[in-house]
Amino acid sequence: MRGFFIGRFQPYHLGHHEVIKNIIHEVDELIIGIGSAQESHTLENPFTAGERVLMIVRALEELNIDKRIYVIPLEDIYRNSLWVSHVCSMVPPFDIVYTNNPLVYRLFKEAGFKVKSTKMYNRKEYQGTEIRRKMLEGGDWERYVPKAVAEVIKEIDGISRIKEIAAKDV
Amino acid sequence: MRGFFIGRFQPYHLGHHEVIKNIIHEVDELIIGIGSAQESHTLENPFTAGERVLMIVRALEELNIDKRIYVIPLEDIYRNSLWVSHVCSMVPPFDIVYTNNPLVYRLFKEAGFKVKSTKMYNRKEYQGTEIRRKMLEGGDWERYVPKAVAEVIKEIDGISRIKEIAAKDV
Amino acid sequence: MRGFFIGRFQPYHLGHHEVIKNIIHEVDELIIGIGSAQESHTLENPFTAGERVLMIVRALEELNIDKRIYVIPLEDIYRNSLWVSHVCSMVPPFDIVYTNNPLVYRLFKEAGFKVKSTKMYNRKEYQGTEIRRKMLEGGDWERYVPKAVAEVIKEIDGISRIKEIAAKDV
Amino acid sequence: MRGFFIGRFQPYHLGHHEVIKNIIHEVDELIIGIGSAQESHTLENPFTAGERVLMIVRALEELNIDKRIYVIPLEDIYRNSLWVSHVCSMVPPFDIVYTNNPLVYRLFKEAGFKVKSTKMYNRKEYQGTEIRRKMLEGGDWERYVPKAVAEVIKEIDGISRIKEIAAKDV
Amino acid sequence: MRGFFIGRFQPYHLGHHEVIKNIIHEVDELIIGIGSAQESHTLENPFTAGERVLMIVRALEELNIDKRIYVIPLEDIYRNSLWVSHVCSMVPPFDIVYTNNPLVYRLFKEAGFKVKSTKMYNRKEYQGTEIRRKMLEGGDWERYVPKAVAEVIKEIDGISRIKEIAAKDV
Amino acid sequence: MRGFFIGRFQPYHLGHHEVIKNIIHEVDELIIGIGSAQESHTLENPFTAGERVLMIVRALEELNIDKRIYVIPLEDIYRNSLWVSHVCSMVPPFDIVYTNNPLVYRLFKEAGFKVKSTKMYNRKEYQGTEIRRKMLEGGDWERYVPKAVAEVIKEIDGISRIKEIAAKDV
Repeated sequence: MRGFFIGRFQPYHLGHHEVIKNIIHEVDELIIGIGSAQESHTLENPFTAGERVLMIVRALEELNIDKRIYVIPLEDIYRNSLWVSHVCSMVPPFDIVYTNNPLVYRLFKEAGFKVKSTKMYNRKEYQGTEIRRKMLEGGDWERYVPKAVAEVIKEIDGISRIKEIAAKDV
Repeated sequence: MRGFFIGRFQPYHLGHHEVIKNIIHEVDELIIGIGSAQESHTLENPFTAGERVLMIVRALEELNIDKRIYVIPLEDIYRNSLWVSHVCSMVPPFDIVYTNNPLVYRLFKEAGFKVKSTKMYNRKEYQGTEIRRKMLEGGDWERYVPKAVAEVIKEIDGISRIKEIAAKDV
Repeated sequence: MRGFFIGRFQPYHLGHHEVIKNIIHEVDELIIGIGSAQESHTLENPFTAGERVLMIVRALEELNIDKRIYVIPLEDIYRNSLWVSHVCSMVPPFDIVYTNNPLVYRLFKEAGFKVKSTKMYNRKEYQGTEIRRKMLEGGDWERYVPKAVAEVIKEIDGISRIKEIAAKDV
Repeated sequence: MRGFFIGRFQPYHLGHHEVIKNIIHEVDELIIGIGSAQESHTLENPFTAGERVLMIVRALEELNIDKRIYVIPLEDIYRNSLWVSHVCSMVPPFDIVYTNNPLVYRLFKEAGFKVKSTKMYNRKEYQGTEIRRKMLEGGDWERYVPKAVAEVIKEIDGISRIKEIAAKDV
Repeated sequence: MRGFFIGRFQPYHLGHHEVIKNIIHEVDELIIGIGSAQESHTLENPFTAGERVLMIVRALEELNIDKRIYVIPLEDIYRNSLWVSHVCSMVPPFDIVYTNNPLVYRLFKEAGFKVKSTKMYNRKEYQGTEIRRKMLEGGDWERYVPKAVAEVIKEIDGISRIKEIAAKDV
Repeated sequence: MRGFFIGRFQPYHLGHHEVIKNIIHEVDELIIGIGSAQESHTLENPFTAGERVLMIVRALEELNIDKRIYVIPLEDIYRNSLWVSHVCSMVPPFDIVYTNNPLVYRLFKEAGFKVKSTKMYNRKEYQGTEIRRKMLEGGDWERYVPKAVAEVIKEIDGISRIKEIAAKDV
C-alpha cells in the first residue's frame, strides 16, 4: 500500500516529522508532495522547492526508514477542481491520503479516495507560521526543526533572506 | 437585440432571478455569462461552473421564457484590459450589457458598448455573501434561491462541501 | 440520462448534425462541448467560440428537439491528464460520452466513464478540414453545413476572414 | 555602464523623477522597467503599461537627458525564482540595479548583481498609494507628478476611470 | 499621428530598416513592437527581446530620426481574439498600423483600426529565415543587417549560440 | 559534488541506464530531472510524470547504488530564457550538468554552469522514438528497457494506451 502526504514544508519541522513517523508504519511506500512548489522568497513561502527537497530528504535520513519514499515538488494549479488530477499525474499511484487540511480532505474524498486525518503533534508550537515568525524576529527557531533542516537553512543563508525580504525599505 | 448579463452566481439567487425577469423584456435574446468559471470549492466560490449552469438553466425553466437564452461559463483572464475581448470571443455578439458591477460597467463603456445598470432587488438580503454565510452557519438559505436551485444544491451535496472546506482542521 | 458530445465545430456541419440526430434519442439531456474554445482566426480554427455557439444553437432549432441541450465552450487545458476533470468542472454532470476521437475515448475510459463511439455520417465528405478548404478555395461549402450555419458564416463575413488570413503577404 | 531601475509607476510621480535625476549621472544608459505591466483598471494599478510608457517618456523629455533611455514594460511572472531571468530576457544587458524594494534588492543580489538603494525623495508625500487616494477623493494630486504626466492622465480621462471603478454599485 | 509597426526582428535587418525609413515620414511618432518577445534560443527565434531592443535602438540611431520612437517588447498572448487588446494595453495609443502580415492586418481591421500594407524591400533577400540560415551555415549574413546590428550580434556571441542549439548531439 | 541529469524518459530505457551507471561514479549525489512532466497520453509522451518516477526509481534499485538520488518531475516553462532558473528552483543545488541535448547544454553554459556531454550507449537502438514505435507496432520493446520498467508499463496497461490514442477513428 502506497500513501500520500502533502505539505508546503516552509520549513519542514518537527510536527511534520512526527506525522511521518506515525504514518510510515501504515504503508509500504510513502509519497511526500511539496505543495506550492513554485513559490519562494516571500514571508509565507521563503524556501524554493529544491531547498525543501533537501530539508526533507536529509531529515528523513535520521529516521533510518527502510521503505521507499518519494519526495515530489508539486506546482500549484490554481483550480481546485483540477488539483486531484494534477497530483495524480505527477506522482506514482497511491491508495490512501494523509492530511489535516480540510480542502485537501474534501477534494480527495469527492474524487473517491480513502483519506485519513493526521494528528498534528503539538499543533500550537509546531506550525510554519510560528516558526517563520521566530526566524524573522531572531527567536529560537532551531528547536522546532530537525537538526538536518537547521543545517540546510544555514547553508542557504535562509535567515538573512527572510529578514531582507521583510524589510520595509532597503 | 441581444443582451449580455454576467454574474458569478455562487449561487444563482432570487436577486439574479428578478433582474432577469426585468431585462428579458428589453431584448430578443439573452446571454448569461458565468464569471470566474474556473473557481470552485472555496468559501467565496463553492460551486463549479457546471453546477452553476445547472442551477441557472433549471431556474429559468420556471419562468417559461420564450426567448433564446445562452448560458456560457467564462474563465477569468486575469487582465482587465483583455477581459472585454475575452467575453466577446466566447459568446455570440451582443448589443447591450446589463450589470451593476462598476468594473464591468467601466470596461465595456471604454470599449464602446452600451451598458445599463441593473437594479438589484432587495440588495441587502439577496446577495451571494449573505446566502453563503447562511449555508455555512446552518441558516435558512433556501428562501433566497429559486426552488430549482435549492434542489441542485441538495443533489450535489453542496452544503456539506461548504461546511467541510470551512473547517479549520479536519 | 445526460450525454456529452464534444467537437471543435469549425464549422458545425451536417456530419455533426447527423450524429446529434442519432444520439439525442438515447439521452434525456445532451451537453455539446465546443473544444479549443480559445482558438480563432487561424485556418484550422477560423471561428470564435461565440460564433460556434451561434451556429450550433441555430442549427439545432431546425431539429425541433424537445430535450434540454447545453452548448458549452471549453478552453484547452494543454494537459491530457487534467482534461477530463476540466470538462467535468465546466459542464453539468453526465452519464455517457459520445465521441469518435481516440484520445477523448481513452481519457474518459481511464477516468471510468461509459464511452460510446459515434458513427460519423459520410466521413469523407463531412469533415471540417475538407469544408474549410472549400471555403478557402471558393468551392461549394454550403451544401455541407445546415442552412442556419451558412447564414451565421455570412453574417460574420467568415469566408473573407479565412481568405485574408491565408494570404501570403497582404 | 548601463543601469536598471524598476517601478510600477502608477502613476510616474516626482519621487521617481528625483531618483532618475540622481542616478542618470552614474550611468551611460538607463533602462526603466515598468513592473506589473499587465495590470490596469484597478485602484492599485489604474493605468495600462502603454499609458505609463507615455507618462514616463514625456516626463523625461522635460529633463533634456542626452543619454539613451529604454522604457520597457515588464509583465509579472508570478514566480520570484524566475523574475531576474525574466527581466534579463526582456531588456538589454545591464551592470547595476537601482531599487529601494527589498524583494527586488534580494533577488538581484542572490543572482550576483550589483544593487544600489535609491533614496526616495520625500517618501511620505511622493508615493503612489497617497497620490491615487488623492485622485479618488478629489484632492490636489497634480502637484505630485510632473506636468507632462498630469497631461497624459487628463488625455486618457484617468481620474474618472479611478472614480468609476471605485464605486460600490453603478 | 502615431503609427504602430510590428515584427519579430530575428534579427532586425535591412528590410525592416527600409520600411521604417519609409513610414517614419507619414507619422509624428512611431511605436515598434517586438513580437514573440518571450522567445529565444531557438533556430526560429535565437535572440532575446532585450537583445532585439538593443539591435533596433542602435540601428535607428544611424538614421538620425528626430521623431519619438518607442521600442516595446510584446509577449505572445496565444489567442488571436485577444491580441489587439493585448497590444493596445502595452503600448501608447496609435492611429495607424503598418504591417504586411495577413493575420495582423485582419485582426486590426476587424477591431476597426486603419491598417496599411508595408512594401517589403527586396523580400527575397531580406527576410529573417534566409538570414538565420546564413548565420547557421557560415554564409555572409552581415550584408543583410545594419552595421549596428552586426555589432550587437557579435557582442552577445549570437552566431555560436545559433550553431550550438542547431547541433544534433553535443 | 552533486550532479544533474535530465531526460523525458518516455520510457526510461537501457540507454539512460548506461549513462547513469557511468556518471554515478563522478558525483556524490545525483538529481534526475523528468522533463516535460506535464505531458502524457500522446504518442510522443505516453506516460505521466508519476509513472516515469516509478519506472526510474524501480530500475535504479537494480543497480544497488549507495548514493543519494533525487528523482524530480519538471514541468515545461515554455521560455528558454527562464528554464535554467526554473530547474534551479525545483531541485537541490548542483555543481555539474550531464546532457547530450544541445539546447540544454547551451542554456546551462550561458548561465555559467559546468556541463559535460554524456555518451549515449548504442544511440541507434536505445532511443525513445524507436522504442515507442515498437510499442505501437507490436515489436519487441522489452529488450530495450530495464526489467523493472517493463513491469511498470504492464501494470499501468501502457501498451494499450499507446495503441488506442494512435487509432485514427475509434
